Amino acid sequence: MSKNLFPNKGLIKREPSKVIWLTGLSGSGKSTIANELEVALEDMGIKSYVLDGDNLRVGLNKDLGFSDDDRKENMRRIAEVAKLFADSGTVTIAAFISPFKAERAECKEIIGAENFVECHVDTSLEVCEARDVKGLYAKARAGIIPNFTGIDSPYEEPSNPDMVLEAGVFTISECVDKILTQMKGKL
Amino acid sequence: MSKNLFPNKGLIKREPSKVIWLTGLSGSGKSTIANELEVALEDMGIKSYVLDGDNLRVGLNKDLGFSDDDRKENMRRIAEVAKLFADSGTVTIAAFISPFKAERAECKEIIGAENFVECHVDTSLEVCEARDVKGLYAKARAGIIPNFTGIDSPYEEPSNPDMVLEAGVFTISECVDKILTQMKGKL
Repeated sequence: MSKNLFPNKGLIKREPSKVIWLTGLSGSGKSTIANELEVALEDMGIKSYVLDGDNLRVGLNKDLGFSDDDRKENMRRIAEVAKLFADSGTVTIAAFISPFKAERAECKEIIGAENFVECHVDTSLEVCEARDVKGLYAKARAGIIPNFTGIDSPYEEPSNPDMVLEAGVFTISECVDKILTQMKGKL
Repeated sequence: MSKNLFPNKGLIKREPSKVIWLTGLSGSGKSTIANELEVALEDMGIKSYVLDGDNLRVGLNKDLGFSDDDRKENMRRIAEVAKLFADSGTVTIAAFISPFKAERAECKEIIGAENFVECHVDTSLEVCEARDVKGLYAKARAGIIPNFTGIDSPYEEPSNPDMVLEAGVFTISECVDKILTQMKGKL
C-alpha cells in the first residue's frame, strides 16, 4: 500500500509519520515540550526529531530575514522539510511561534491534513512576559525588537486546534503526557 | 558525548549518520543505486532515506530554476536538509548530478567532512546517452535542453572520491554491495 507523501519516490512504501506542530507565543514552552517529547518517544522506541529555530534558522533558513516575504518563505521551507521527515517515517516535532492562521493553514496543506497535528501551546502573554527567559519581551517593549508577536504583532490563536497545551498551568511533563495520551496508537 | 551537528539543539545526543552522496551524469544509475541501497539498509534494520529530484524539486526547491544562482541555492538547501537528516540519525542517501567540484565541496563543508561520503557513479557518457531512459540526451543534442551536463555543460569528476561505482560495468546490486562492504561498521 503506497502511502508515500512523494508518489514517484523510492521503492519502500512507508506509512508517513505525524507532524506534531507546536504553535504559541515566544516563551510559551514550545521547544521545552518538543525536546521532552522527543526524549519520551525515544524511550518508547519511536523515532522522532525536533525542528525548531536552533536547527532551521542557523542552517537552511539562514538566508532569510524577518520581512513578510521572508517569514512566509521560512514557514514554507519548514513545512517542506517536515514533510520530508514525515515521509521518511520519523515523527516530526515542529516548534515555531507560527502566529498567523494563514501560514499554519499553508503548512497543513503542504504536509497533508491527515498528518498535521496542530497543538496550541496556550501560555498567557502575562506568563510568557513575566518569564522572559531570553529578555526578548523587555527588548520588544523598549522598541528594540519590532514586530514582536504578542506585543506589536498579533498572535492569531488556532480556532480549532487538535490539542491545547496550557503550559502556564500544567507542567511540561503533564503537557507531554497529554500529547502521548491523545496520540496513543497514532504515532 | 555530544555529537549533534547542531550544538544548541535538543536533549538527545546522537551520533550523526553518514550522508552517502552519489554524484554522476544523468542516467548513470544514481537514483537506482540510492533506492536499492535504501532497501538493503532497511533489511539490515538501518534507517535511511533518499533525497533526490523526486522529492526535492517538487517541494522544498520548487521555487528554484536552473540559473547559476538557483543551482547553487538548490545544492545548498539539499546539503542543509541532508545535514538535518544526518543529525536525526538517519543514513542519508543523496542522489544528484552535482557536476561541479566547488558545489560538492560546499556540500561537504555544510554537512561536515567526517560525515560526507562522496561516491562517484562513474558511468560513461556513451553508456548514459545510449540508455537515455528519459529521452533527455536526445533533447540536449537537439538543443531543446540547454546547459545539459555532459553535452554542453561540464561534469567535473571528483579528484579523490571515497568510492567509485562503475555502474556501466557492474550491476546495481554489485554497486550497492560495494557501498555496504566499504561502509561496514560505519553506518
